[in-house]
Amino acid sequence: MIRILVINGPNLNLLGVREPGIYGSLSLASIEENLRKQAEDMGIQISFFQSNHEGHIIDRIQAAMGEVDGIVINPGALTHYSYAIRDALTTVKIPVVEVHMSNIHAREEFRHKSVVAPVAVGQIAGFGDASYYLGLTAMYRYLEGRN
Amino acid sequence: MIRILVINGPNLNLLGVREPGIYGSLSLASIEENLRKQAEDMGIQISFFQSNHEGHIIDRIQAAMGEVDGIVINPGALTHYSYAIRDALTTVKIPVVEVHMSNIHAREEFRHKSVVAPVAVGQIAGFGDASYYLGLTAMYRYLEGRN
Amino acid sequence: MIRILVINGPNLNLLGVREPGIYGSLSLASIEENLRKQAEDMGIQISFFQSNHEGHIIDRIQAAMGEVDGIVINPGALTHYSYAIRDALTTVKIPVVEVHMSNIHAREEFRHKSVVAPVAVGQIAGFGDASYYLGLTAMYRYLEGRN
Amino acid sequence: MIRILVINGPNLNLLGVREPGIYGSLSLASIEENLRKQAEDMGIQISFFQSNHEGHIIDRIQAAMGEVDGIVINPGALTHYSYAIRDALTTVKIPVVEVHMSNIHAREEFRHKSVVAPVAVGQIAGFGDASYYLGLTAMYRYLEGRN
Amino acid sequence: MIRILVINGPNLNLLGVREPGIYGSLSLASIEENLRKQAEDMGIQISFFQSNHEGHIIDRIQAAMGEVDGIVINPGALTHYSYAIRDALTTVKIPVVEVHMSNIHAREEFRHKSVVAPVAVGQIAGFGDASYYLGLTAMYRYLEGRN
Amino acid sequence: MIRILVINGPNLNLLGVREPGIYGSLSLASIEENLRKQAEDMGIQISFFQSNHEGHIIDRIQAAMGEVDGIVINPGALTHYSYAIRDALTTVKIPVVEVHMSNIHAREEFRHKSVVAPVAVGQIAGFGDASYYLGLTAMYRYLEGRN
Amino acid sequence: MIRILVINGPNLNLLGVREPGIYGSLSLASIEENLRKQAEDMGIQISFFQSNHEGHIIDRIQAAMGEVDGIVINPGALTHYSYAIRDALTTVKIPVVEVHMSNIHAREEFRHKSVVAPVAVGQIAGFGDASYYLGLTAMYRYLEGRN
Amino acid sequence: MIRILVINGPNLNLLGVREPGIYGSLSLASIEENLRKQAEDMGIQISFFQSNHEGHIIDRIQAAMGEVDGIVINPGALTHYSYAIRDALTTVKIPVVEVHMSNIHAREEFRHKSVVAPVAVGQIAGFGDASYYLGLTAMYRYLEGRN
Amino acid sequence: MIRILVINGPNLNLLGVREPGIYGSLSLASIEENLRKQAEDMGIQISFFQSNHEGHIIDRIQAAMGEVDGIVINPGALTHYSYAIRDALTTVKIPVVEVHMSNIHAREEFRHKSVVAPVAVGQIAGFGDASYYLGLTAMYRYLEGRN
Amino acid sequence: MIRILVINGPNLNLLGVREPGIYGSLSLASIEENLRKQAEDMGIQISFFQSNHEGHIIDRIQAAMGEVDGIVINPGALTHYSYAIRDALTTVKIPVVEVHMSNIHAREEFRHKSVVAPVAVGQIAGFGDASYYLGLTAMYRYLEGRN
Amino acid sequence: MIRILVINGPNLNLLGVREPGIYGSLSLASIEENLRKQAEDMGIQISFFQSNHEGHIIDRIQAAMGEVDGIVINPGALTHYSYAIRDALTTVKIPVVEVHMSNIHAREEFRHKSVVAPVAVGQIAGFGDASYYLGLTAMYRYLEGRN
Amino acid sequence: MIRILVINGPNLNLLGVREPGIYGSLSLASIEENLRKQAEDMGIQISFFQSNHEGHIIDRIQAAMGEVDGIVINPGALTHYSYAIRDALTTVKIPVVEVHMSNIHAREEFRHKSVVAPVAVGQIAGFGDASYYLGLTAMYRYLEGRN
Repeated sequence: MIRILVINGPNLNLLGVREPGIYGSLSLASIEENLRKQAEDMGIQISFFQSNHEGHIIDRIQAAMGEVDGIVINPGALTHYSYAIRDALTTVKIPVVEVHMSNIHAREEFRHKSVVAPVAVGQIAGFGDASYYLGLTAMYRYLEGRN
Repeated sequence: MIRILVINGPNLNLLGVREPGIYGSLSLASIEENLRKQAEDMGIQISFFQSNHEGHIIDRIQAAMGEVDGIVINPGALTHYSYAIRDALTTVKIPVVEVHMSNIHAREEFRHKSVVAPVAVGQIAGFGDASYYLGLTAMYRYLEGRN
Repeated sequence: MIRILVINGPNLNLLGVREPGIYGSLSLASIEENLRKQAEDMGIQISFFQSNHEGHIIDRIQAAMGEVDGIVINPGALTHYSYAIRDALTTVKIPVVEVHMSNIHAREEFRHKSVVAPVAVGQIAGFGDASYYLGLTAMYRYLEGRN
Repeated sequence: MIRILVINGPNLNLLGVREPGIYGSLSLASIEENLRKQAEDMGIQISFFQSNHEGHIIDRIQAAMGEVDGIVINPGALTHYSYAIRDALTTVKIPVVEVHMSNIHAREEFRHKSVVAPVAVGQIAGFGDASYYLGLTAMYRYLEGRN
Repeated sequence: MIRILVINGPNLNLLGVREPGIYGSLSLASIEENLRKQAEDMGIQISFFQSNHEGHIIDRIQAAMGEVDGIVINPGALTHYSYAIRDALTTVKIPVVEVHMSNIHAREEFRHKSVVAPVAVGQIAGFGDASYYLGLTAMYRYLEGRN
Repeated sequence: MIRILVINGPNLNLLGVREPGIYGSLSLASIEENLRKQAEDMGIQISFFQSNHEGHIIDRIQAAMGEVDGIVINPGALTHYSYAIRDALTTVKIPVVEVHMSNIHAREEFRHKSVVAPVAVGQIAGFGDASYYLGLTAMYRYLEGRN
Repeated sequence: MIRILVINGPNLNLLGVREPGIYGSLSLASIEENLRKQAEDMGIQISFFQSNHEGHIIDRIQAAMGEVDGIVINPGALTHYSYAIRDALTTVKIPVVEVHMSNIHAREEFRHKSVVAPVAVGQIAGFGDASYYLGLTAMYRYLEGRN
Repeated sequence: MIRILVINGPNLNLLGVREPGIYGSLSLASIEENLRKQAEDMGIQISFFQSNHEGHIIDRIQAAMGEVDGIVINPGALTHYSYAIRDALTTVKIPVVEVHMSNIHAREEFRHKSVVAPVAVGQIAGFGDASYYLGLTAMYRYLEGRN
Repeated sequence: MIRILVINGPNLNLLGVREPGIYGSLSLASIEENLRKQAEDMGIQISFFQSNHEGHIIDRIQAAMGEVDGIVINPGALTHYSYAIRDALTTVKIPVVEVHMSNIHAREEFRHKSVVAPVAVGQIAGFGDASYYLGLTAMYRYLEGRN
Repeated sequence: MIRILVINGPNLNLLGVREPGIYGSLSLASIEENLRKQAEDMGIQISFFQSNHEGHIIDRIQAAMGEVDGIVINPGALTHYSYAIRDALTTVKIPVVEVHMSNIHAREEFRHKSVVAPVAVGQIAGFGDASYYLGLTAMYRYLEGRN
Repeated sequence: MIRILVINGPNLNLLGVREPGIYGSLSLASIEENLRKQAEDMGIQISFFQSNHEGHIIDRIQAAMGEVDGIVINPGALTHYSYAIRDALTTVKIPVVEVHMSNIHAREEFRHKSVVAPVAVGQIAGFGDASYYLGLTAMYRYLEGRN
Repeated sequence: MIRILVINGPNLNLLGVREPGIYGSLSLASIEENLRKQAEDMGIQISFFQSNHEGHIIDRIQAAMGEVDGIVINPGALTHYSYAIRDALTTVKIPVVEVHMSNIHAREEFRHKSVVAPVAVGQIAGFGDASYYLGLTAMYRYLEGRN
């Protein structure tokens, strides 16, 4: 059974509250609930983690070694400068899919660049909560494709 | 019934031939066939277009006005400089999802920037032929979300 | 009798449709009709060409050698990257006036730079369909000034 | 009756003297005289101002509030750095057309950028004294189009 | 009664110790004590928070939703790269005043840019501990001005 | 008795007129009147100067030698390019506080950089007319701190 | 027998007409005729293609798969931005030699960079029509060296 | 007796696991054990700290005031953006030697710049676990040289 | 008899007062007096002008047409941005020598670039008041060399 | 009889030894021997020079005045920074062809730019030892074309 | 027996004379003497070379092929631009350790970048004469580690 | 008696030959002869050195310690990249005046920057052979001013 960990970075715990015009009105709990259902349907064992702390995210990624087969991550604003998260991901060698609810390529200049993307399998951005759904599917297909 | 047009830019007609290490071994015909099946399952009316000519792609986008509800586009290398395709997309006001088989953010510097992405709903990159499947799904969910 | 060719680049065939807030509500046909009348009044022989294809625009510029005395061109988005159109213009040595309906200097950064302008007599931008009228007049006065 | 103010910046008082190869051999007085005749024909009330002082130009722009309907300005070299003139123009909210006798986009790199253009209706460059004639016409059509 | 939260970022707990030539000899406790007195005089309810952890600062900002009316923040070195703190501030939609004891615009190049300032009401820099006093006053006047 | 000179640069004479959305609806005269009252309360001797001319501002700064103890300056758009004002301030060696009504760090890119700030005690930006009040207080505390 | 395809990009059909000071007075037909003779002497089967259309050039490159052993290309102005031609060349995996009649490294800044060169065997620039002769020889020796 | 603190940043707890081709196969524990022995031989009192949290590293640096004579630090990926760690080091005024196992100057562009190095005594990079040994020796000699 | 005009820009009227460590302790009057003596010895007719106003300097340069044979100018801080002074100098076509008391190439980055130098005969910087003496001599020799 | 000097810069004396994957396995002596034969066949008088010293190369270029008709130069790594060699070549006014064995445009960024190329007739890069052969031929044809 | 060559570049022959505040007061001879003793202790055969000539340094590096096992080099100012020394080092394939007495990362911007470092095993900077001692040790451990 | 050394860099031995339009028709020998006479008149002991070798120039500068009081140097093209010469000059602590015959600020972009100027007393450029005369005088006055 494929095991996938979904990680959310800073401020994503406030989804539904934060700029609904950009991020939609679903709370993170609702999104995770929906993902759990989808995972069940796909026969995936899913777990979740959210933190506003770069360090805790790194700790969690490290703890995932040998425990999960893939990571779906929305690093929030850390996307744009956390080389430490990038290094954590390459250290544990778990495949990763990067997702963003907003289309980061259509916003402020600083959001166009992801320091995580170069070590990810791929990136999905701009589809609101559907970005997570698509990310989970992408991760699933990628892992299946490797077997 | 939702109508979606899938556009492929230069050199994607040679999929399966072109650098299989990066782009996989499926031909474009096979990918389109798979997408057609998926579309049928989802109740989507799908059509395809491929050209190595920027001008033909613009012509096709313009012709799509009033004819399709969404565009899934992989502009190939034109992604990085065709402001004319970008303008075509904003002119016709049809929602667009940009897809790439390779993870453009992990390749040469010039591939990191898409001039199309700022006018798209979102971007999906890095999942081989699954990028199209994910793009179709993303487009579908986006269009449903608008109703 | 002075002969002037008016060339329009990608997406200008959709004038009146495309972002009317920026480009106004006149169709290209109406604009050309108005220019034809103005040309008649000024004793100018006028012809028109529009294409979404860089290559066709270059072909048309080349065909204009010995056939027209001046070119008024709105290269659309090709303004910003088509060094090939620039080279076509210097090759045929026909004086050219560059026009834009919108004020390109007040829009996105990438629209501020024209690769065509350095080989033109001058540039007129920001006056909607009047940019063409002004461009025709400018071309006319320039050609008269040379005799 | 439409009232238009024509402003010329530093060194344009020496037109006819200054690099005739670039700027032509007409004096500023002659150009203003020609513009006055053209304005009469068009039923425009025209006034002129020239100064080598950024401060005087700002003073004049401010004094134009409620007094003129449009400004045609050739800021000379101040075009490239006078953010204070730019702010004066946005402060008084009078529509402005920027004109240049030479094609600034074909000269030294520093002349390619106008700090005034982003707050103007449009820009006309490269047609010698005809740039003023075209600018006056452009201003006129713009003001008429607003009524 | 207006409620204001004063947040201090990394290393500001060592004020009085850290480079007194730049930051003065007052400890953070003394500064907070002085601010408390000033707040009392102004009828403001004041609270304080300091952390060397970006994550804790984000947590604290989030916790302030519905609890405080304004935030006065000195993000320390995080000023220059913590897009996550910036996002936290826009997420909670509490007005914020950014303060710095030193004149960041007169120090190393990297200190000239604040990633927080674009989402703040304003920025005050260079007045030692008085920057906090001024920041508190600025916040107070801003909040009053909104009523 | 502390003597402070308040200098305002180009276009600030039109406060109340100029983009009220950004600069508020108070006229410069009202702001100066309020500052005069505040100064009286604080036992400060205050004087004012406004000009649209860089040269007059420099003249005034030079004349202030031996006449005032501190300068509060809002150089308007000159903030961003007048190295001559910067040099005037270092020449006379009078402490200076730079103020801006708008948050220059949240506006166009060119407004983010002040060429004056590196020679000022500090900078205050974003608080409307309160920026002057805060600047006066900052200057006062700075001068007192030096005795 | 070695088979080589010589491709010429935009405006090279006007050789002999176009800026003879830079490109010499030989027509493209004459150059091709001379190359044909040279090819005969070297026992090379040679074919030619010229187009002003990026798309046609890509089509032709693709059609060359399995049909030619090497390509000598002068992409004209497309040299500087056509990542699509670059991708076509890597897709078909036919060795390519890039040639230019003028010394692109001694002309305008934008001509210094070739986006094609990084995927070519090598580049030859500056020798007028002899660049083609040298390119043919280089291609020949390269292909021989591989056997 | 000289007291030295060795600090390791994010992901260095996984040494031996993380990309052994770059970082070698020794675990952090083994490296610390070896350093402890070396320190004993040199008569140095040594202590260790590792964290994936920027904040904890800052806390630890602050706690080192008056407790250690020198710091040997490998900030991991934080090297490239943690101005907060840099400030912590200047705040406590303890001499610091920066070490890296890999040659950061030979890797990705972003690793070439250290924001910590300008406040360090020196930097040692590229010698695997020997970088720590060399760093300890360098710190020791530096401290001795100061007496 | 050779006629030379010496122009000094903003803040140079305060020489002797302004940062004596950089500019020396001689007043401008003394320097001009010394230059007058030197000019007499060399048989040069000399005149002087100083202003803090860019506009007045331009006026003065224009007035110099037909009146002086050479200009020695120290534009002060205007050196770095006054394209208007640069244009004035090219307009009047009087040879110009640019002088600076301090070595502008050894000071802040922004002082390294002179926008005036490209239109001057040459530049002399770094020799205190001797820069003027050297500039006068240079101008003299240049003018003699032209006869 | 045409006289050509072939100059090789630093490290090219070790050809055959140096990175054979990039530079091939022929020694410089062998290459020179082959060139000598080719020169004989073409009726060219050929001479050779190699040095690791920029100064000696400049000396040799100067000594070539009046002695040779053309120079074929591979400046090695000096290609990228030796403005002194560039100046030597323009000083002696001997036509020069720049050659490189590797395709410098496909290697590290710093190798893409040649400071010599702008003063050369042309540049040939990427064909191993054949680059010399092609360079000799190019030089020969260029010199013949001038007669 | 391990054989190591220590190379010093321009101006390092004047150690002890040159800016003692930065480089210490030991002469190069003393440093070499100390290194010789250290080498003896470590059983290393050591040799030294210093030159102010880039060319001689390259000659010496080339001569070291087959003669030494490792190079410790302080290229002095050549560090920042001598791509020719870099190429010499890759040509001879001898492992190299780059050392600097001063902390180049804390000095002028241009000293931050080493063109040699990317081809070195590692870099040591900032420890005065101890940098050489550390470099020798680093080289020794590296060579031992390879056996 | 003041002792001054005049150093000329690469290609200046060919003065009179090299681009006379830029550098004049005097040979270096003539210029040195004229300088010798001038030095005699001023009671200066003068010596000369020219080399095309960066290394020899450094050797000569070092040899000048204790032997000369000032250096007048025209480093030729080395001006723009020889940080080694810059370091030599700071090492020997002899005051230096940098001279150029041409106005380097009016030529190619790369000539605008001198890496030597920041360590010189001052720079003189643009006066042909008179630049040396002015440089000698500047050096003389500087040295006298120090006594």
